[in-house]
Amino acid sequence: MSQGRLTLPIETGIDEQIRELAQRLQPDAVRNSDGTELPEIAHELVDKVYSTYFPARGDNEWADKLPGQRVCQYLMSEPVTAQTSEPLKIDVMEGYFAWQFAPDLDCDRAKYWQVIDRTTGQTLPVDAWSLDPSEVQYPDAAKLAAKPGPKDSESKSAIVTIHKPQRYHVYTVNFLARQIWDSTQMYNYLTNDWALDPKRRRDRTYDVEYPQVWAHVKESLAQWLDAHPEVDVVRFTTFFYHFTLVFDDRARERYVDWFGYSASVSIPALEAFEQRYGYALTPEDFVDAGFYNSPFRIPSAHYRDWMEFTGQRVREKTAQLVKMVHAQGKEAMMFLGDNWIGTEPYSEDFEQVGLDAVVGSVGNAATCRMISDIPGVRYREGRLLPYFFPDVFNDEGDPVGEARASWRAARRAIIRKPLERIGYGGYLSLALKYPKFVDEVERIVTQFRQLHDKTGGRAPAASRVRVGVLNAWGSLRSWQTHMVAHALPYRRTDAYVGVIEALAGLPFDVRFVSFDEVKAGALQDLDVIINAGSAGTAFSGGEYWADPDLLTRVREFVARGGGFIGVGEPSALPESQTRTCGNVFALDDVLGLDIERDFGLSRHLYTQVTADHFVTRDLTERFDAGPAVEGVFATRGGAEVLDSPEGGVSLAVHEYGAGRAVYFSGLPYSVTNARLLHRALYWAGGCEEAFERDWTCDNPAIEVAYYPNVSLLAVSNITDQPQEGVIHGEGKTLSVQLGADDLVWLECE
Amino acid sequence: MSQGRLTLPIETGIDEQIRELAQRLQPDAVRNSDGTELPEIAHELVDKVYSTYFPARGDNEWADKLPGQRVCQYLMSEPVTAQTSEPLKIDVMEGYFAWQFAPDLDCDRAKYWQVIDRTTGQTLPVDAWSLDPSEVQYPDAAKLAAKPGPKDSESKSAIVTIHKPQRYHVYTVNFLARQIWDSTQMYNYLTNDWALDPKRRRDRTYDVEYPQVWAHVKESLAQWLDAHPEVDVVRFTTFFYHFTLVFDDRARERYVDWFGYSASVSIPALEAFEQRYGYALTPEDFVDAGFYNSPFRIPSAHYRDWMEFTGQRVREKTAQLVKMVHAQGKEAMMFLGDNWIGTEPYSEDFEQVGLDAVVGSVGNAATCRMISDIPGVRYREGRLLPYFFPDVFNDEGDPVGEARASWRAARRAIIRKPLERIGYGGYLSLALKYPKFVDEVERIVTQFRQLHDKTGGRAPAASRVRVGVLNAWGSLRSWQTHMVAHALPYRRTDAYVGVIEALAGLPFDVRFVSFDEVKAGALQDLDVIINAGSAGTAFSGGEYWADPDLLTRVREFVARGGGFIGVGEPSALPESQTRTCGNVFALDDVLGLDIERDFGLSRHLYTQVTADHFVTRDLTERFDAGPAVEGVFATRGGAEVLDSPEGGVSLAVHEYGAGRAVYFSGLPYSVTNARLLHRALYWAGGCEEAFERDWTCDNPAIEVAYYPNVSLLAVSNITDQPQEGVIHGEGKTLSVQLGADDLVWLECE
Repeated sequence: MSQGRLTLPIETGIDEQIRELAQRLQPDAVRNSDGTELPEIAHELVDKVYSTYFPARGDNEWADKLPGQRVCQYLMSEPVTAQTSEPLKIDVMEGYFAWQFAPDLDCDRAKYWQVIDRTTGQTLPVDAWSLDPSEVQYPDAAKLAAKPGPKDSESKSAIVTIHKPQRYHVYTVNFLARQIWDSTQMYNYLTNDWALDPKRRRDRTYDVEYPQVWAHVKESLAQWLDAHPEVDVVRFTTFFYHFTLVFDDRARERYVDWFGYSASVSIPALEAFEQRYGYALTPEDFVDAGFYNSPFRIPSAHYRDWMEFTGQRVREKTAQLVKMVHAQGKEAMMFLGDNWIGTEPYSEDFEQVGLDAVVGSVGNAATCRMISDIPGVRYREGRLLPYFFPDVFNDEGDPVGEARASWRAARRAIIRKPLERIGYGGYLSLALKYPKFVDEVERIVTQFRQLHDKTGGRAPAASRVRVGVLNAWGSLRSWQTHMVAHALPYRRTDAYVGVIEALAGLPFDVRFVSFDEVKAGALQDLDVIINAGSAGTAFSGGEYWADPDLLTRVREFVARGGGFIGVGEPSALPESQTRTCGNVFALDDVLGLDIERDFGLSRHLYTQVTADHFVTRDLTERFDAGPAVEGVFATRGGAEVLDSPEGGVSLAVHEYGAGRAVYFSGLPYSVTNARLLHRALYWAGGCEEAFERDWTCDNPAIEVAYYPNVSLLAVSNITDQPQEGVIHGEGKTLSVQLGADDLVWLECE
Repeated sequence: MSQGRLTLPIETGIDEQIRELAQRLQPDAVRNSDGTELPEIAHELVDKVYSTYFPARGDNEWADKLPGQRVCQYLMSEPVTAQTSEPLKIDVMEGYFAWQFAPDLDCDRAKYWQVIDRTTGQTLPVDAWSLDPSEVQYPDAAKLAAKPGPKDSESKSAIVTIHKPQRYHVYTVNFLARQIWDSTQMYNYLTNDWALDPKRRRDRTYDVEYPQVWAHVKESLAQWLDAHPEVDVVRFTTFFYHFTLVFDDRARERYVDWFGYSASVSIPALEAFEQRYGYALTPEDFVDAGFYNSPFRIPSAHYRDWMEFTGQRVREKTAQLVKMVHAQGKEAMMFLGDNWIGTEPYSEDFEQVGLDAVVGSVGNAATCRMISDIPGVRYREGRLLPYFFPDVFNDEGDPVGEARASWRAARRAIIRKPLERIGYGGYLSLALKYPKFVDEVERIVTQFRQLHDKTGGRAPAASRVRVGVLNAWGSLRSWQTHMVAHALPYRRTDAYVGVIEALAGLPFDVRFVSFDEVKAGALQDLDVIINAGSAGTAFSGGEYWADPDLLTRVREFVARGGGFIGVGEPSALPESQTRTCGNVFALDDVLGLDIERDFGLSRHLYTQVTADHFVTRDLTERFDAGPAVEGVFATRGGAEVLDSPEGGVSLAVHEYGAGRAVYFSGLPYSVTNARLLHRALYWAGGCEEAFERDWTCDNPAIEVAYYPNVSLLAVSNITDQPQEGVIHGEGKTLSVQLGADDLVWLECE
């Protein structure tokens, strides 16, 4: 077994066990975790010692003196219907978690709060309502289940009184709230039932927009670096602003947006924004009618400005911290997640932050590619699952099964675009109680090192078909489209996430391209474009498709020989546009398909299904589109339908000029569906004759990666069952038999 | 067995069989059908002889001389994408059936044709395109299956050339087309493979808007009346304008709207319209981007004007024909359907037409109520299924089963609101070959006559809960909401049609109320309102719900003690409105529910299901919402959820002020779902304690109608299986056992 490329979490008190494990797994780095300390033996075992570092939380005694310098967040109260025209009272904190937020009552409410009549959409004049501080209503213990607790000194609420509401109109209050507890720490505390542990102190936030805070953050890092000569890698977890994560009054997650910028707000920042952009943002620019600019929303110009503004300021400050780390001869590593807002690795100028590395949690193939494709750092590390936490490592849990499933998904991506390192996190003492789990880790680490040892860490050959995934965000959301929260499954995104998950392990060069880039000519570097998503979302495109220029460019691209793959409701127009043009899919001509809204039911639809096609040739059972859209139909003389269960067309192909289009009503990830997409991309790219030449196996459960530099094939069984099949490539054939989850290396000379 | 109330179709050549059957079934009226002649024995058998009469078709030799006086219809060409900026040619008849339509090339194309760039929504100036007559491209015989045929002398096409199209824009031509074959006759001919029969002549249409035609129509009727003293009842089938029915180039239905006014167009009428309304309608007012103003569309002001205009003119002319019939001592009966446009029985002033009766086809309970509730005529007749046509009466067909199923559905409605008469249609000689079918007819006729004999034809007692079904059309669409074509099933309407089908047999006074009427105060006469439909349709309401006045009235109605039942996407707002107010259901506060669009996925939804509730008390298995909407969730502190399968809430209840709301994600008709609606109406109406007092059976398969005038209960088994149950009413209980489909009469003193 070779060495290195592996980070293990270690802790004090189990030195002998750590030594034995290190001997066996040969890690080259160790780390602590939230709640553990590094033992002194660390450097005896490995080259590098990581330490987590939280720049903007944790110095609670200092922070307690500055309650006005918390990071703020815009929230919307529950909507309240006025049942009479008598004064209407709204408790703004109703439904929110009193340990997480407190309304900011010190600010200029005329500017930083906003009361909206949601029935008319009108903002009320500031003299139409008044504001009174109020005791926060702590929910009773029963409602909180096992998580009641003492009051927090900073917790409070406020009552807004609307003096003369209109009867039966609905009102909301947009209010600035202070984040009085760091969101990730809160999540960890609630998950581990630490919230009532008197030994643990809840971390306050503080906002680097305030000069006093920023000076303190820098000073603290300087002191910490001096005090920790044993640390080689400062693992920032993370920087200043958390993604949007809101808890409800029963301490359950209420709103989560892994990409959200709602929690990066402060009055100094809003003032600086106004100065620089020449206009003031309103609370509603953040609240967005309660949708909080989720990445599924078509981004507004104001929100884009705020993202740009925040990103530039955060990166500028982060670069200063990284310089301090480098000045001490240490490396700076960023954790991908938590307080990562403003340092998204696919944002512009990310490289200028100067980080050495990024580490992120691997939830599946897509999240793995999200890490391994990051530009502008020297190395990338994937933290594999499961995290060594009691939620999995217990008598009912299945740590071995979780490790296998996680690696099965991640390996597809790692083969395509190798991570430089892998690692684990959590409490090693807990994991060591499960010897079979340690065996499994050994198997995983061995397979991972082989990839580097056999190929020099190079990526395998990619198909000549260059793929672009269209969306409103472009490359900023590389491998992140349709993600609500990191790798969490959602029934309604299943149909679309599967496309990204499949692509993450398929042999294609993939780019994420915005509609604006398409209008600026980006299609010239692509062979097939994918548009996957539900109507009205940033991923399908919504009102972008009402733009004749965009339509013309895409139609021309396909008509001249390009490929278009639509999933779900591709190019779906806003309803107002459908009323004047008659179709729902703007590209109904390209797809040869449209979708039936109920006001179009009077049209008769006739569907004939084609039995055999290149795209479906490896299907052994019927295509499963999952909980997909219904009502899709072939237009007159339009698409060739490959499957049409009750409810409408689920799979179809269409030729358009010299180009081709493929449609899936949904494409949840499965071995079979990944193969369908693989074939669809070859067919849409007009090179189906190359499919067998490019090293593929006739069994979709076996994926093949070809390394021309070393004339090797990495042949992987991507299922938990034994598989066999015949591999074709460059006119040769090879029969293979693989055990469950096997990875084998074959020479292909 | 008692007598009368029954109309039988008879024909020549089977006199003896007809006599025997008349002895057995005791009809009091006979009729001919399309393709049969009345035998001379007719008057010997019955009191009344009906004869079909077609006022505006059939005099083909005369009509051939006036090809310019056909009824016209607006059609939209297939959309065509310009692949270059070279002149673009569009054959307007492509995809249409050459025997049905021919473009009108004689009219002023600047005014009566319209070329639209559908990519921009702009109408092209008339000098941007030119028009050339063209031979119609008859499809080849293979494409037409068994229905090819000779050319029609009036068939033709036209090529529109757009001189300088914009590359990759999509163009359509709205064109005025002459109807060269009557649509119902075409349907019958195609269905029966008569189209190539040299003995049969295809009926031309002619439009009574032309003075020459109108004079001829009146003269022909006068002559016919003189020539047919044996006829007692002139059964108009029907008047002047057919509902919208368009065939494709393979002679299949392409577009059908049983309520459509697209086929009532002529240049004189358009000119008279402009004169009267002060503005000219454009072709697009009819074409409506290809949706042709289907009743699912929110009606436009222009379309409403056209309906009013056409209705007034048709009723005025129809009244003249009816007067002529009455002057001869005969009765005038209207067939509900076919060329019925302008004489819809729930339209204003229908009564002034002066008809004696209406007869219609009974497809289910809802279509039965559509007939039996008609105001302003002396009697109403339901033509039961099956029609005696070879499509059912053959070796594979099941005429007995169809008759049973049809009666099972219709009887629920007839018990609630008795029809005066029933009847059959088609070829008696065919039906007589199936003796078991004749037995079944005897059973049906017996049950029908009992209703009249036992109760004097009165309606049974109704619940005190008065029900209003909200929709954009109001009473005009009584019992016709969500209907595409008469009683035909559509997967996407199943969830909503079930509400109407259930209501048609439940003991409630039901009204169909428009949103405009609600704004004018109509809610004061109602106890529970139902809003059922998909977002953006006339039945859910679409942009109506953006009106604060409507919202205020409905909220106030419920808050003060009214009931609201929502099905599917009730009160769903247009997407643009959702963006500013945050909710999809405008009445999310009343329902305590909203629906998740994909840009709202970041919200966490927690659903807890209540096990027991008054509404679900008779459910023995899980609620089946059919192919219903997904993504519905209870708002914070909102609805009590009664069922929530994977995908979202399917059934919930909510209290709002002093009132109550019930939600179903879909309610396809079934015995169980009808009972759910029955209970939901009592609960929403706040009188659930009256449910057992009002005569109900604990088995939902047994429906009970209570006749206070005669102290009788009509107890019907609405299934094809034996049933037993306990009936409660006014504090009494009765145990009953019923055979399949039984109707029994019990005294309840």
